[in-house]
Amino acid sequence: MNELEKLFNRIVQRVNINLRELNFDVNPFAIELIPLDQMSKFYAFYGITPDHPPELHFEHSAIAGSYFLGKSRVRNSLLYKSDIRGDELKHKDQTISFKNLTLTLTKDEIIDIEDSALIKTLVHNCSHDPETLEKFFIKNTLAMDYSNIHGSPSDGCFLAPYATVDLTTMRDCVIGAYSYIQAGEISHLNVDPGTIWVNSPGNFNFFYKYPLTLLDRYVSLSPDKVPWGILIDFIEERKVEFLRVFDVVNLEAIESIPKTSSLDRYAVVLPNIKIADNVLVSQRAYIENSTLGQGANAQENCFIINSHLEAYNVTAHGAKIIEAELGSGTFVGFNSFLCGKKEGRLKIGAGCVIMPHTIIDIEQALEIPANQLVWGLVRDKEDLAKNSIALEKMSGIESSFSQGEMHFEGNGALFVKAFKERIHHILEANGAFFADGKNAGHAQKNQKLSLNTIKPFQFGPMEGMYPNIRILP
Amino acid sequence: MNELEKLFNRIVQRVNINLRELNFDVNPFAIELIPLDQMSKFYAFYGITPDHPPELHFEHSAIAGSYFLGKSRVRNSLLYKSDIRGDELKHKDQTISFKNLTLTLTKDEIIDIEDSALIKTLVHNCSHDPETLEKFFIKNTLAMDYSNIHGSPSDGCFLAPYATVDLTTMRDCVIGAYSYIQAGEISHLNVDPGTIWVNSPGNFNFFYKYPLTLLDRYVSLSPDKVPWGILIDFIEERKVEFLRVFDVVNLEAIESIPKTSSLDRYAVVLPNIKIADNVLVSQRAYIENSTLGQGANAQENCFIINSHLEAYNVTAHGAKIIEAELGSGTFVGFNSFLCGKKEGRLKIGAGCVIMPHTIIDIEQALEIPANQLVWGLVRDKEDLAKNSIALEKMSGIESSFSQGEMHFEGNGALFVKAFKERIHHILEANGAFFADGKNAGHAQKNQKLSLNTIKPFQFGPMEGMYPNIRILP
Repeated sequence: MNELEKLFNRIVQRVNINLRELNFDVNPFAIELIPLDQMSKFYAFYGITPDHPPELHFEHSAIAGSYFLGKSRVRNSLLYKSDIRGDELKHKDQTISFKNLTLTLTKDEIIDIEDSALIKTLVHNCSHDPETLEKFFIKNTLAMDYSNIHGSPSDGCFLAPYATVDLTTMRDCVIGAYSYIQAGEISHLNVDPGTIWVNSPGNFNFFYKYPLTLLDRYVSLSPDKVPWGILIDFIEERKVEFLRVFDVVNLEAIESIPKTSSLDRYAVVLPNIKIADNVLVSQRAYIENSTLGQGANAQENCFIINSHLEAYNVTAHGAKIIEAELGSGTFVGFNSFLCGKKEGRLKIGAGCVIMPHTIIDIEQALEIPANQLVWGLVRDKEDLAKNSIALEKMSGIESSFSQGEMHFEGNGALFVKAFKERIHHILEANGAFFADGKNAGHAQKNQKLSLNTIKPFQFGPMEGMYPNIRILP
Repeated sequence: MNELEKLFNRIVQRVNINLRELNFDVNPFAIELIPLDQMSKFYAFYGITPDHPPELHFEHSAIAGSYFLGKSRVRNSLLYKSDIRGDELKHKDQTISFKNLTLTLTKDEIIDIEDSALIKTLVHNCSHDPETLEKFFIKNTLAMDYSNIHGSPSDGCFLAPYATVDLTTMRDCVIGAYSYIQAGEISHLNVDPGTIWVNSPGNFNFFYKYPLTLLDRYVSLSPDKVPWGILIDFIEERKVEFLRVFDVVNLEAIESIPKTSSLDRYAVVLPNIKIADNVLVSQRAYIENSTLGQGANAQENCFIINSHLEAYNVTAHGAKIIEAELGSGTFVGFNSFLCGKKEGRLKIGAGCVIMPHTIIDIEQALEIPANQLVWGLVRDKEDLAKNSIALEKMSGIESSFSQGEMHFEGNGALFVKAFKERIHHILEANGAFFADGKNAGHAQKNQKLSLNTIKPFQFGPMEGMYPNIRILP
């Protein structure tokens, strides 16, 4: 057995030890998870900007195809085509308010990945846990394809494909396929597939669960085979387009990108696109025959195809928008799948909030009025009526409210406010409001990115493993 | 003026200050030297092997297209497509004998490049100066295209195109185009172009000077234009073949390479080639329609075209072999240009020593008998008679000897012995004698090389400059 296999087996054991109380065995899922023979074929890469000088430490790990930005450390881990984006990590002496407490960071925050396997996983943002301000840890964790670990320290967890954990510290949890969890702190939970749960204790609690028989078409996981479903196929079909951008050292610059916008070196851009000012297109984003209006941002692993985005749109990590028109200020959350058809396009009015992990998959044209909250599975007008509510109406809820499979408790106004503030923050951080040299965000700052590569050992017992290496400014 | 221009001007000033006593101004040569607008287009790269874990430090420098292996530091310098090969640096606690003294290294040796510009320069081996065992320094030095700084610490020097300084510490010197100097220690010398000088004080002194009118055709330098001549054109014509290997991330492996041999990732290999066991093809080597016999090595920047090399051949850094048959154990020194013709091939007998910087440029077939020493310009049989001697005869010389433009003083046997021992050392270091898992050299060890890249800032005042970065194991 070579070092890579030993490493992977060791990680699986560590995750299983943590999940023993849930009686969950990751082994059957793990076995098909990583193409160990492919690990030596992909380089890892890291970005350097004047804002984020490199401070990276890789030790006894395989990090094929993965990207790093900002301060991070990877030990005894296996990362495959994951994005570790530390560009929003907190800094030494920064203060964080939490209720009536003010905490000061004693050192710069670091993303610290240990004894974990992350497959096509996005790790972003910073630790939102006031107990661990300086360390965004990911330990004893196995995360599968297109999962998002967003502001969420993790110890002893398994994330199924397309699972997102957002602003939540998790310990010894299983997060089912296509589940979205934003709950502050969770422990020893086995979350069913297709669970959408936004919980702010004392303020609000939003809960929706996909009917499993309907979700199965989109993403499925069983112990005896690799993940399958429409969402998996969708990406597989477009894989070839990514080959070119990763295989060539220098791509030709696209002249039509405004100076205030940035198009990542590892994004796929197919004809014909129009990009307005202050737009951010992140790496592994895929844009085809679409318009991105002023201040729009297309985040990692998102797909925008045959669509028109008016302005100040957020297409969050992993979201897909096909044959659609989006009004100004619409937000499309993590891993959403908005699939209009050529003969039946999807129109979304200005100011709508499409909740993370929403599937809109229509056969006939559908129009969503402005300022709606939309969640869950929407295939037609009837589904829409069941799975949406006007934001104004939502704001009026004071105790509880149920509609279809969605259940809400608490203060609707706080829920809407929290979403709106977060969307504003995302736009701001991404540089959407850049003007007169002020309010620069990722769209402007990322233009200065230099991308460096690291390659694995090519044969022998260390094949596919990477050299131990520290990179410092 | 951006940082890159400032840096270059500063280096030129430093070199000029050192050369003020020679009354030599590098400015006119420098002005055309570096395509400053190209510097942002090329990545730098470094190799990592288990034998040479990375320890690199780049500071306020531009290092476009340059390669690094082993411990090196680059400060306030501009390197363009240079190879800095520290794989033969000395180690802590290693002992070095020098006459009746034994010196012990207090730390690992480092290549330390400061306030210098190196253009397509090869830096290799280790400091051969017993006064500076732990530091192979290159300071206040400007080296032009295809010069070699080989085991030669340098302070305040200018090397014209195709100049080689070998096992020699130099201070405040100008080395003319196509000159080869191996003289232990030199200072305040202005060496004419085309000087071949091998001096071992008290043992031997070999001196040859190319007639300038004849050398001009091959390589010329004047203050008012870029270098020109057959040797420059030869490389320009083949430049396009190198583009592909540097522009693509993964090249297809060539199956026919034996497991005991290595073909560098950045070598150019065109049909049809045959490579035997224990062969080393180094980076930026160019092999076309040729055979490399057992234990042959093709070093950096060498070209081997339509030729057959029998076995245990050394094609040293920058040597070119075209339409030729080389017998077993032939040595072709630095920057030699052996140019047979399709209808008039060059045959070199076994055991010949082709001195560094030899030009054999024939119109009609020419055969060199076995075990000859050959130097200088050879265009036909008459030139060969003048510019060669049997090694046996050379070994018999006890005081002095002149032939054509060559003058020799001292002990011929020591001269021949020094060459033969060095050739044996080169073959050994390169792994030519590898058998049964023993005597591994670069040919075997370099197979484990991982190649990582570093990219420069792409725009703004720092365009073309590289981030300050330290890379540690």
